[in-house]
Amino acid sequence: MKLYDAQAPNPRRARIFIAEKGLDIPTQELSIMDGENLTPEYKAKSRFGLIPALELDDGMVLTEVPAICRYLESKHPEPNLMGRDPLEIAQIEMWERYCEMSGSQAVGEYFRNGFSKLDDRGLPGITGIPRIEALIDRGKRRLASFYEVIEQRLGESEYLASGRFTLTDITGLCAVDFAQMVKLGIPEANRNTKRWHAACSARPSAAA
Amino acid sequence: MKLYDAQAPNPRRARIFIAEKGLDIPTQELSIMDGENLTPEYKAKSRFGLIPALELDDGMVLTEVPAICRYLESKHPEPNLMGRDPLEIAQIEMWERYCEMSGSQAVGEYFRNGFSKLDDRGLPGITGIPRIEALIDRGKRRLASFYEVIEQRLGESEYLASGRFTLTDITGLCAVDFAQMVKLGIPEANRNTKRWHAACSARPSAAA
Repeated sequence: MKLYDAQAPNPRRARIFIAEKGLDIPTQELSIMDGENLTPEYKAKSRFGLIPALELDDGMVLTEVPAICRYLESKHPEPNLMGRDPLEIAQIEMWERYCEMSGSQAVGEYFRNGFSKLDDRGLPGITGIPRIEALIDRGKRRLASFYEVIEQRLGESEYLASGRFTLTDITGLCAVDFAQMVKLGIPEANRNTKRWHAACSARPSAAA
Repeated sequence: MKLYDAQAPNPRRARIFIAEKGLDIPTQELSIMDGENLTPEYKAKSRFGLIPALELDDGMVLTEVPAICRYLESKHPEPNLMGRDPLEIAQIEMWERYCEMSGSQAVGEYFRNGFSKLDDRGLPGITGIPRIEALIDRGKRRLASFYEVIEQRLGESEYLASGRFTLTDITGLCAVDFAQMVKLGIPEANRNTKRWHAACSARPSAAA
């Protein structure tokens, strides 16, 4: 087994998940900035041109973080990170998608469309997508809404999907840390989010 | 149990899944055009302002189509639509996400940003997101890439995720039918995609 990896929020979701599971999976690092995910060689393995990708021992390649994690969870059930019963599984998936689509993707929109090194690469995985100035502001607005929703949620629940740390918190942490990196950190007044962020960041896996 | 439903591609994914399972779940239809998904009353149930949402008998509400489907699959395992072993489960999730993010969302981008009735609603679930002219063209480009990838895939595999009809095909069908509705139908030369589309459309569930 091998993980195609990169210095970016999505591969980090997989790395933290693997660290929480205590697994030791060799990695090969590629550079998104240099477009190493878009070469014909890499796309022959990872068809959507996305990182991370998990290559299995028979050569089969899985992409998409939740799919990779669900596969690893089935092979290594403990510690459980994706739910113990149908309802908890659904809540983790629902909130995890929210953190990805309204958190990470909002920051990605802000970042990719404002960063001249990613000209023609306004979206991950494909080329020919020019940067769009108006998306910088849209990304910020989406993220503001995300911060509002998770602040409310974390006033009701210790962690994002349930009372315990799960894959949802990994995705939420990667979204918030990505936002902080581009100076869109947690709003000052959001005490619940700060409490949760400190707890997630204190886990050894956060260094992954 | 009750499904909050609407005339739109995402609720249709859930309706087709429910039809394939042979389940009879009462629905309540809301109008996205009239913003009925954005009222405080609805958001008190479905926090992200998205349709569909599945209200359980205890009042708990699940949103996000894959989470709703995975919950229903666990309660009603047959016919299986989300995979029988860890590898098939992962492949279905991986391709299903691709169909959603590169298919449906591409069409949504094209449609929402070109449709004056959705002023200020350039994204689902939130307001204050102005339409962006440049996204009309970006949506088309993303969709062209999606059509290319699935045409190649359907040259290797009878259905999108594996050799049999699964949730991935439901999401793919909803994406392609949405594209056809806005006159971005399957490119003439894409014979594999046309063969697959005809097979999916011939299933009774496609009427859902």
